[in-house]
Parts: sequence; structure tokens; C-alpha cells
Amino acid sequence: MSLSDVRALTFDTGGTILDWHTGFKTILSETGAKHGLERNWHDIANDIRRKGLGKMLNLGKDEPPGYNFDGAHRMALEEVITENGLEAFTEEERHTIAYDAPHNFECWSDFPAVLPKLREKYMCASFTILSFRIIMDTARRNGLSWDAVFSCEAIGKYKILPEAYDTVAHYLQLEPSQICMVACHNFDLDAAKSRGYNTAFVKRPREWGNDSPPDPEPNPIHDIIVDDFPSLANALGANP
Amino acid sequence: MSLSDVRALTFDTGGTILDWHTGFKTILSETGAKHGLERNWHDIANDIRRKGLGKMLNLGKDEPPGYNFDGAHRMALEEVITENGLEAFTEEERHTIAYDAPHNFECWSDFPAVLPKLREKYMCASFTILSFRIIMDTARRNGLSWDAVFSCEAIGKYKILPEAYDTVAHYLQLEPSQICMVACHNFDLDAAKSRGYNTAFVKRPREWGNDSPPDPEPNPIHDIIVDDFPSLANALGANP
Repeated sequence: MSLSDVRALTFDTGGTILDWHTGFKTILSETGAKHGLERNWHDIANDIRRKGLGKMLNLGKDEPPGYNFDGAHRMALEEVITENGLEAFTEEERHTIAYDAPHNFECWSDFPAVLPKLREKYMCASFTILSFRIIMDTARRNGLSWDAVFSCEAIGKYKILPEAYDTVAHYLQLEPSQICMVACHNFDLDAAKSRGYNTAFVKRPREWGNDSPPDPEPNPIHDIIVDDFPSLANALGANP
Repeated sequence: MSLSDVRALTFDTGGTILDWHTGFKTILSETGAKHGLERNWHDIANDIRRKGLGKMLNLGKDEPPGYNFDGAHRMALEEVITENGLEAFTEEERHTIAYDAPHNFECWSDFPAVLPKLREKYMCASFTILSFRIIMDTARRNGLSWDAVFSCEAIGKYKILPEAYDTVAHYLQLEPSQICMVACHNFDLDAAKSRGYNTAFVKRPREWGNDSPPDPEPNPIHDIIVDDFPSLANALGANP
């Protein structure tokens, strides 16, 4: 396996590209303030993410998925509302937190300028457990253009099931060794690696706000380990 | 139903965006010349398309598809080789005609400048029976950026099956009345209309070269009927 064979980059998008923590924390604290509620909005934002991820990873293993990540965000919000005494939040506010906020997540500032450089050399696709609409809406908001969006919503098998990685390689008509998965999460990259992908770990120490990410240390098996996207472009020879 | 409700445009891509006729005719005549063969390459190009389409439309109706449009192009080529005494074509030449040529189709000249204008106002997705790779490769070659690529390859139900249109509306999280299907073919637009989509017929009188298209007269049920893409942008108020 050699990085010189790589033809396509597939990007985890939530977390690696999008700053979900700031997005959730901001709308939660604004909504709380309207109701005069004081809570640890930082922790609640992270809890929505944690619960949402838990509902999505490996979804479709035993039966077809019954919801997408928009549905999971809403279920996760309802749980934290109950657990944190936030029942005053109105239906409209709940929709804004669980739906509008993710569709308006801002992307990390080091990515938009690098994507076009990477696209000059590689096919660059979002490969994500987020819904198509979250990817399409956040791309439009942040001025990103993907070559394609491969949402597990269409595959019916979510990361980190092997079928998800195999299917994307099949759609790309590439051997997995011709693809590099890019993410800030070992669980995603480890799964991609086990299916034959190259892997690039891009560190996102602020993904969970002031908390350290749950698994911050890159697994040394990854082919590229970098601190940011300009460094990834350099490592891939895509920074003329 | 009103066009003012439209949020997304879904584009038939083969034929409507890409000039398959010139692409096939050029490589066929070049390959024939290498072998000193004279044939009606215009007609053979159209026959590859006709046979290919026949293998794709409604594919997946009764059982999961066993091939994508790249496979259909190759099968169609083998048929015209037999029918036209082109057995001298080598395996490499056959791959070039059936695979490389479609992945390098040029797009009609009126589209590239209009797509960014349409994207300012609408989500713009390729919604196609072509393979993901044909769309990704031709987009890169022609400088197009789609918001997403919805290939029937991932849906498993090909146009003009109703499930194809219903699934894309589901992924877009829109009512069909909030989507406008754009194509140069009545069969595609009629099927979209029957599922509640708005429809825009963009004429492509040269799609089949010197032949008139098989069904050139727009069905009057379509919401927009225009001669080219600048006119479509005008009709949709996306031409500032």
C-alpha cells in the first residue's frame, strides 16, 4: 500500500469538518437564557452529541435504519431535556436546536481554503453518518463543494459497519488501497483501515470544547497523522 | 403547486448536461480508422446509447440491479460490435469506448456558467441513471460542482420507477412540490411529474447528432419549457 496510489479522499464530516460543539452550545445557552434557565450548556451540548452518535454508529446492522441523524439529534435532545429539567423548551425551540443548528454548523476555519487544493489532485467526497441535508446545507453555508456526498443514509449500513466502507469503495470504483479516509476519530479510521483504506488522522483537540476528545491519541497505524488541514495537504502533496 | 416553492433542482445528467453523442461518435470513428474500418459511426453511437438506456430504465423493478451504467455501456458496445462486424476492436479499445469515453463526456456549452447561478438560489443535484463515477469524473473534467450526486446506483431502483423519485425527495427532506426535475426527456419528466415534482424541459435538439431526438416535443404538462440553460435560469429567477 502506498499513498501515491491514492485517487480519492473520503472525509468524515461531523467533528472533522464541522464544529458541532460550538453550534449546539450556542443555541442551547441562547434558548436557556430565554427561559431564565442556567445549566452547564457545554456539557449538555456534548451529551447531545454522545447520545446522537450512540444511536447512529452501526445502525442498520440487524435491520434497516428507522431514522437518520436528524431523527437521532431530536431523540437525543428529548433525553437531555428530561435529564436536565428543560421541559420549558417549546416545540419550535426544540426543532431549532435539533434540526436548524446542525444544518447551520460552521466548519473549522482551516478547511475551506484547503478543499479546492485537495480537489485538484483527488476526488474528495463527504463520507458521513450525517444526513444528506446536513451535508448539503452546511456545505452551502460554508462555501464547500464536494465531488459527491456519500451519506450512510443511502447505504443503509452506518459506520463503523464494514459494509459502509466497502460500498463507498464500490461506488468510487476503486480498490480501498486507492482511497484515504480522513477523520479525527480512531474508531472511524480503524474501521476504514480494516477494510483496506489508507487513513489520515487530523487532530481536532477542540471538538468537544474544553473537554479533551474521548480518544485523542491517534492510533499509530494511521498512514498520516497531522495537526490540521494545511498539514494534510502538504502530506498529500496537494499544496502547490 | 407553485414554482416559488421550489427549493431544489434535480438534473438528469446524461443527455441533458452531457453530450454523449459526440463523445461516442468521436472515439468510435477514431478506433475504426485505426483498423481501416468504415461504418456509419453516427448511427452506431446512437445505437450504443439506445441499447444502454434499454438496459437501465426501470432496472431494479423485480430484483436488485446486477450492473450499473458502466456495465450497460460495455454490454451495449459488445452488441454493436457483433452487429456491425467490429470484432477487430481490441480489449483495450473496447474499454476506452465503453468506459473512458463516457467518463470524459463534454458537457453542453450553455451549462457550466449557469450552474453556479442556479446554486445561489437552489440546491442543485445530479439525479441520474449514470454511475457515480461517470458523474464525478465528468464534473471534474467540465468544472461542475453539484450539491450532491443522487445516482440510481445507490437507490437500487432506476428511473422511471416511482421509488427513484420518491427516494430522492426523501433524501432532500422536501415535498416533491418543492423540487423541480430538469431534463430534455419527456419520459423522465413525466415520471417525476407523476410523483408530484415540478418539471422543466430543456430542449436538446442535437442530443442524437443529426437525428431528431426520439421524443423531441415537450409534453405541455411541464411547468417550464425552454431552449437552453440561460433561459431556464431566467424562468427560475436565478439570473441576476
